[in-house]
Amino acid sequence: MTDHLHNAKSLEQFKAGLAGLARPSSRSTDAARARQSQLTKPPGSLGKLEDLAIFMAGWQDREIPQIDNAQALVFAGNHGVCSQGVNPFPQEVTAQMVANFNNGGAAINQLCKANGATLKAVALELENPTADISQGPAMSKAETLDALLRGAAEVDPDADILMLGEMGIGNSTIAAAMACATFGGDGRQWAGPGTGSDPDGVNLKAKIIDQALKVNAAALGDPFDILTALGGREQAAICGAVLQARQYGIAVILDGFICTAAAGVLHLIDGALDHCLIAHASTEPGHAPLMSALGKDPLLDLNMRLGEGSGAAVALGVLRSALACHAGMATFAEAGVSGA
Amino acid sequence: MTDHLHNAKSLEQFKAGLAGLARPSSRSTDAARARQSQLTKPPGSLGKLEDLAIFMAGWQDREIPQIDNAQALVFAGNHGVCSQGVNPFPQEVTAQMVANFNNGGAAINQLCKANGATLKAVALELENPTADISQGPAMSKAETLDALLRGAAEVDPDADILMLGEMGIGNSTIAAAMACATFGGDGRQWAGPGTGSDPDGVNLKAKIIDQALKVNAAALGDPFDILTALGGREQAAICGAVLQARQYGIAVILDGFICTAAAGVLHLIDGALDHCLIAHASTEPGHAPLMSALGKDPLLDLNMRLGEGSGAAVALGVLRSALACHAGMATFAEAGVSGA
Repeated sequence: MTDHLHNAKSLEQFKAGLAGLARPSSRSTDAARARQSQLTKPPGSLGKLEDLAIFMAGWQDREIPQIDNAQALVFAGNHGVCSQGVNPFPQEVTAQMVANFNNGGAAINQLCKANGATLKAVALELENPTADISQGPAMSKAETLDALLRGAAEVDPDADILMLGEMGIGNSTIAAAMACATFGGDGRQWAGPGTGSDPDGVNLKAKIIDQALKVNAAALGDPFDILTALGGREQAAICGAVLQARQYGIAVILDGFICTAAAGVLHLIDGALDHCLIAHASTEPGHAPLMSALGKDPLLDLNMRLGEGSGAAVALGVLRSALACHAGMATFAEAGVSGA
Repeated sequence: MTDHLHNAKSLEQFKAGLAGLARPSSRSTDAARARQSQLTKPPGSLGKLEDLAIFMAGWQDREIPQIDNAQALVFAGNHGVCSQGVNPFPQEVTAQMVANFNNGGAAINQLCKANGATLKAVALELENPTADISQGPAMSKAETLDALLRGAAEVDPDADILMLGEMGIGNSTIAAAMACATFGGDGRQWAGPGTGSDPDGVNLKAKIIDQALKVNAAALGDPFDILTALGGREQAAICGAVLQARQYGIAVILDGFICTAAAGVLHLIDGALDHCLIAHASTEPGHAPLMSALGKDPLLDLNMRLGEGSGAAVALGVLRSALACHAGMATFAEAGVSGA
């Protein structure tokens, strides 16, 4: 994985760039674990804060990891499947919310400011929705590659952590369809209320998802096929950013259901999500089985279901707390505190 | 509740000061709830962040609550019950950790810095442990009052939020005994490993707790009796601080098992803990039934069990995120975003 993914000229070249995914440094992981055992607290008593510090040490390859540069990216796209009536909000809301991000008025703006992250909203051809997945593939291979590269190119090589989020009216249907193709099951198992569908709306989403899986059944072989057939531009951009971050050795915080489902297709590539944390347990019913399929626990459980990276930005605060303890605490020897 | 609690001259005067506990402002609660419904997000999609903003609006009595001054207090005490061998750490560790707090080397120092709180560690006669609860009452009424007043006096009337924590070798036994007296059950139901007892150690703790409950059975009438019979100075100081904060209209974040059990005796006074949040679910097994008895959910679940206010300081970051969204987000009208 020496070439930068964002220079790939074809999906095949992009895939070839994934050979030999970087691993966390076991030397730094071990050093961080040893440091934790010396800090003035009963062993293990900081729980996940200890795990997070050790995780970050491995990916940053330093005993004492730091976050000076926290980058948040929110990718936005529009979806042809909205013509099936899967979302109560009009599709114009996607662009309106991107304007809100750019004007500083959305939740993610406040959360990035409160938790010390720089935010960029990336609108992906909002005027040109992807095709309706219930009728055929969402995108051409060229469109998928374009969105993957766009996502990859947005990652700051100097970031110490990357938070990912999304915005796109209709994309909880897209996410559920992708989860269905990646992990099995049917529309009923993965569809949920999203931004606010009632039970009839959820049933409609499930039906549309089943139809999309049927229509696209022959073209769901690998993660990039699933993105092409059932995804959208923001889903492909999320995958591009996840993989580019991996190439740079940057750990990633995935937001809720839609973001996790987008990155989730990469679970089909062995270990491809090892550098990713899941920020929070969404109330969207598909998120729990999705996290379980990925073998990952969320950091937070705050009944959130907004998307736009909101949970990831809150989780950044917890990560900062973890690294602050790891870096700043005295050892038993330094503090003259007796052990058990 | 017009007189300041910290001026009370007797336990009776202190109790009299609790008549007519302040309530949150329903006007500000309603205004904050109305504001949340106008912000650019699907209704309810920020989950507990919305609840927190509305909760804080009520206690601060303003539609848009703020945290400019976040105060963290860690009370420390020593316990005669340590002579029964209930803790693997030597009792000197309490004073050593207070020195560590004062030198800036403990977890709570890093977490307060990371989350923007001022920290004060308050050592309560560490050289003079309370009496062994398995042989009789821990304190005299005068000692209990003294610790209550000490805790109450430490609360900054200008604080916007108060985080409480504790340090005291042996105090997970004290906490379990207090929970037992407040909510029923026996030592086995409330004892846990604390800083690191093995199963034999936990059994010993359970036996000592049962003995303490038996010896003190005649003197467990109200919260202050329980503090006197089974508590310690840091437990009484926590109760004093909780009640003084209530008098000032300051919301409180309680830390884990020991802090919750200390404040938990006030559950016997109707609504006395309504201004308190529980920071996190401790791995100490007694914490889940304790929170359930109090009817409160934790904000975080990070497998922490350190005490010293560590979970409360991490939770402050989540609270800051909640208030940042509430204060800074655009309304649908301001942002020109269409509703459903």
